[in-house]
Amino acid sequence: MVGISIIFFILSILLSATAEASQCSAIGLPLVRKINELPQDNYGREGLSHITVAGSLMHGMKEVEVWLQTFSPGSHTPIHRHSCEEVFVVLKGSGTLYLASSSHEKHPGKPQEYPIVSNSTFHIPVNDVHQVWNTNENEDLQMLVIISRPPVKVFIYEDWHMPHTASKLKFPYYWDDFQSTAFAFCCYPSEPFIH
Amino acid sequence: MVGISIIFFILSILLSATAEASQCSAIGLPLVRKINELPQDNYGREGLSHITVAGSLMHGMKEVEVWLQTFSPGSHTPIHRHSCEEVFVVLKGSGTLYLASSSHEKHPGKPQEYPIVSNSTFHIPVNDVHQVWNTNENEDLQMLVIISRPPVKVFIYEDWHMPHTASKLKFPYYWDDFQSTAFAFCCYPSEPFIH
Repeated sequence: MVGISIIFFILSILLSATAEASQCSAIGLPLVRKINELPQDNYGREGLSHITVAGSLMHGMKEVEVWLQTFSPGSHTPIHRHSCEEVFVVLKGSGTLYLASSSHEKHPGKPQEYPIVSNSTFHIPVNDVHQVWNTNENEDLQMLVIISRPPVKVFIYEDWHMPHTASKLKFPYYWDDFQSTAFAFCCYPSEPFIH
Repeated sequence: MVGISIIFFILSILLSATAEASQCSAIGLPLVRKINELPQDNYGREGLSHITVAGSLMHGMKEVEVWLQTFSPGSHTPIHRHSCEEVFVVLKGSGTLYLASSSHEKHPGKPQEYPIVSNSTFHIPVNDVHQVWNTNENEDLQMLVIISRPPVKVFIYEDWHMPHTASKLKFPYYWDDFQSTAFAFCCYPSEPFIH
């Protein structure tokens, strides 16, 4: 009898935790959301500000996901690849896209460099290794990023000569890690972002 | 012999037309493209300005497509539905989203109205009938629109009480119609769009 009570007690704690978590998911969120009121975080990455505008974890998206990301001068994405489509729309600032178009070799190799500027767009061929860097010393680089097949599965490279087979899968990715996102979604204060 | 020559002549015309058309597709386009240099058109719809930022037909996208659309005061989308995900990011202006959340009935029925404002975002549940209207008399409504599963297959309704079974499929959609897009891509002058 005591055993059954303990099981019920544990179950009730688990159920209440689930209910609390669901308040942080799509349930109860307004259909139209002001972007400057959405949670933003750097997820431990210096110089990054990330907002999930429409996401798999947060809003139940299954086929596309949209992020608003800002990189302070000198900050950048890791060198990485993913097997989904990705489109960038540069809203502010400028920087450099590094893209290894020879990703069919055993390692990415020396990437090509493409300058990116405000009001430009580019997309990354599926599985091509790439990196985006705010190489402008004076201005933040702000981009809308669109990916297919969320949540993203990212393979990270330490450098451009690391073999593809040695790249490390990071999944869930920073903002899809429930531990950090639950905290960010529920507990971080919202600050104005787009003005 | 004359017959064979005629066949070769016709074939050579067809091949040269194909080669010309391919210059308007993804082949030869720069990876980083300035959005204000991309072709824009209204595709015969008054008050609309549409730019395909990253598209199926134009850029070989298979899983996501991104448009930049501007609606002048009083202009709007048709009442429509599609079986793909769609995310809107409102860049400028304001308006109204009409959304029939009871799309599981035999007809859409009276839609709910949601005000949309600059720097807001919303997404349309798959297959829900909807319409976006620039209800602001004084300002253009500019939005980035993201869809999955391009090219879009749109079912159009004359009004909110038209049965789903009577809605009309428009495919290819305005900007995916090769006849008009080939013309727009190749022949329309580029004008500054985002400033």
